[in-house]
Amino acid sequence: ISSLFQMENRPKTLITHPLSRRRIAFVNRPALGILPPENFPDKLFESLLSIAPSGMSRVQTMACGSCSNENAFKSMFIWYRNKERGYASPSEQEVGTCMINQSPGCPDLSILSFMGAFHGRTMGCLAATHSKAIHKLDIPSFDWPIAPFPKLQYPLEEFVRENAQEEARCLEEVEDLIVKWRQKGRPVAGIVIEPIQAEGGDNHASPDFFSKLRNIARKHGCAFHVDEVQTGGGTTGKFWAHENWGLDDPADVVSFSKKLLTGGYYHRDELQPDKPYRIFNTWMGDPSKNLFLSEVLNVIRRENLLEEVTRSGKALLQGLYALQTQYPHILSRARGQGTFCAIDACNDATRDSIMLKARNKGLFMGSCGEKTIRFRPALVFKEYHVHQLLNILNNILAEHK
Amino acid sequence: ISSLFQMENRPKTLITHPLSRRRIAFVNRPALGILPPENFPDKLFESLLSIAPSGMSRVQTMACGSCSNENAFKSMFIWYRNKERGYASPSEQEVGTCMINQSPGCPDLSILSFMGAFHGRTMGCLAATHSKAIHKLDIPSFDWPIAPFPKLQYPLEEFVRENAQEEARCLEEVEDLIVKWRQKGRPVAGIVIEPIQAEGGDNHASPDFFSKLRNIARKHGCAFHVDEVQTGGGTTGKFWAHENWGLDDPADVVSFSKKLLTGGYYHRDELQPDKPYRIFNTWMGDPSKNLFLSEVLNVIRRENLLEEVTRSGKALLQGLYALQTQYPHILSRARGQGTFCAIDACNDATRDSIMLKARNKGLFMGSCGEKTIRFRPALVFKEYHVHQLLNILNNILAEHK
Repeated sequence: ISSLFQMENRPKTLITHPLSRRRIAFVNRPALGILPPENFPDKLFESLLSIAPSGMSRVQTMACGSCSNENAFKSMFIWYRNKERGYASPSEQEVGTCMINQSPGCPDLSILSFMGAFHGRTMGCLAATHSKAIHKLDIPSFDWPIAPFPKLQYPLEEFVRENAQEEARCLEEVEDLIVKWRQKGRPVAGIVIEPIQAEGGDNHASPDFFSKLRNIARKHGCAFHVDEVQTGGGTTGKFWAHENWGLDDPADVVSFSKKLLTGGYYHRDELQPDKPYRIFNTWMGDPSKNLFLSEVLNVIRRENLLEEVTRSGKALLQGLYALQTQYPHILSRARGQGTFCAIDACNDATRDSIMLKARNKGLFMGSCGEKTIRFRPALVFKEYHVHQLLNILNNILAEHK
Repeated sequence: ISSLFQMENRPKTLITHPLSRRRIAFVNRPALGILPPENFPDKLFESLLSIAPSGMSRVQTMACGSCSNENAFKSMFIWYRNKERGYASPSEQEVGTCMINQSPGCPDLSILSFMGAFHGRTMGCLAATHSKAIHKLDIPSFDWPIAPFPKLQYPLEEFVRENAQEEARCLEEVEDLIVKWRQKGRPVAGIVIEPIQAEGGDNHASPDFFSKLRNIARKHGCAFHVDEVQTGGGTTGKFWAHENWGLDDPADVVSFSKKLLTGGYYHRDELQPDKPYRIFNTWMGDPSKNLFLSEVLNVIRRENLLEEVTRSGKALLQGLYALQTQYPHILSRARGQGTFCAIDACNDATRDSIMLKARNKGLFMGSCGEKTIRFRPALVFKEYHVHQLLNILNNILAEHK
């Protein structure tokens, strides 16, 4: 790195100039866990900690969403075993067996996840991911419990009773699985869930479902991990989608990446590992991303982008409702929170054809689940963008056979 | 991101200026697997592909060393199962069972690793890591075979016969484990090894050992993965430490991170997954790191830094030999390749005390294994730096009781 500077023949005085200090942050990527830059805590307060979800006192940065979830899982396992040990030192047997991948040092703990979930692609996260076969095929996995995610009818407010029944069924299954896995010697250390199952097809559930799930985790001594890698960052109208639930008892872990520009996870004090180097990585992210994030947050605040998102999101969802009423043979199940919206096509071929035509007219949309179109506009997406979008879609649908 | 630019009120013309193009690469981090920048292949040829190890035709970038090894493992599993299926499509049963973490879709394949190895801390890598208990304690793991890594006597050239015997013993054990794990229904899809076990205590083995290990992998149909996360980048005097082995049959996978500024792995053509999105991540690294790497490589070439490293490394190792002759009650087992050197103290307390005194005199060293001091100078470490280092160490040792 010092050579890089020599090479560019930059005068040394530049180093003391504020702009150059920032530039240095981009060039000199530190081994964050050992030698963090002196101003790193301050920069965290300006960036990630300024938007910490309620109840979250600490943050751990990581490079990507998968690493964030892997390390969040690890911190839940460590927390769970420390509780079981009564916070005593590990036994000699534990220390010995862990070196050769065996119990009790490497215990048969599990993470409970939901069918349709996506939590990443490294081997720990992948064991909690169940959205598409192509992600998982041929990769060894863990015997971890998988609960059904509620299959709700939309609009949610029109099917309150039916949806509540479906959610109750899933919650009952969660408790059954926790008991069953404890009985077979693979206790559930943590429950992981997305506020909206994104890769799995934009599946929503009610605040009541999530808060009951949190209570089940508490009751059975499992940590509760909310994965906001896709939902975090403001597109749902709140900075964190789970802020819509109004939890009395906050989550234990909230992971993020993507729109946050850096990966990482927030956690409660008690999820802090008891010793250094238990959660560690050479880079643990890249502090230069925090500098970008501070600026992004400034823009979000100054331009009231969360209000914009709420406004555009409402217009978008209303527009989608109107389209599905007009084209009921093609579209159904419009749903969304903020601009984090989705609508189903009648089949995947129709979905793909609509998406291709839209792209050729300048509208780029994504797909998820089996036949779902998902909308993931940037935070600067305004109401007039919504109208442009709806016009393009309407033209395509009007021509559709 | 567009807001970021608006915010800085930069004139749009700046975007066409070459320097600004580069700056944009730092701000606009792409979702590399879906929307790579147009010039990404060219930039790869200038950076990572310009230093590809022999036999390696392809490179996959990733964010960090752990993600690189995780995805390298995944590509070996996919390769192994495709061979077993005769490159046919997966069965319905495989597609169905993989969604719920069960065999045959999630097969009970394994990776053979070595005692003392360090390959990372996400759950797949961690199952192949066996250097310190603190890394592994409380984290669930896989039942994967672990072979002994040769415990050699140093200097290697003075103990050729004894070391060859020890290496033969370990290789025999490797073959036994491959057979045993196949018999118990957990076939070894790949063997992973570091050219020098770094975290595990700077343990070396001979080129003969590694090339016989490669042949064993070939004989049993396992992929051969060389983990150069610590050793890659020039500190051993070659750009890749395994280039010292003179393999006739190259490795299948070579992973890297750290000094390469980006994580990733090289692989042979046949390790390329058969379908898109089997190896995937939103970011898959950060293309701006390739820009830095191109410049670092220019400096390495222009200043002949690999020759410098070979020269300084020789002086360093000779100096360490002299110190251990002079202080045989304190130091032993000096060893190294290039400046990637190490020496053992008589116990960990002495090691730590020497390191602390050295740090206070301006010499920063690392530790590894139980009582090892490791040297990891930058590539610009010259012979005069070696003399400074040896003087400081000599002063400390002379005063040591």
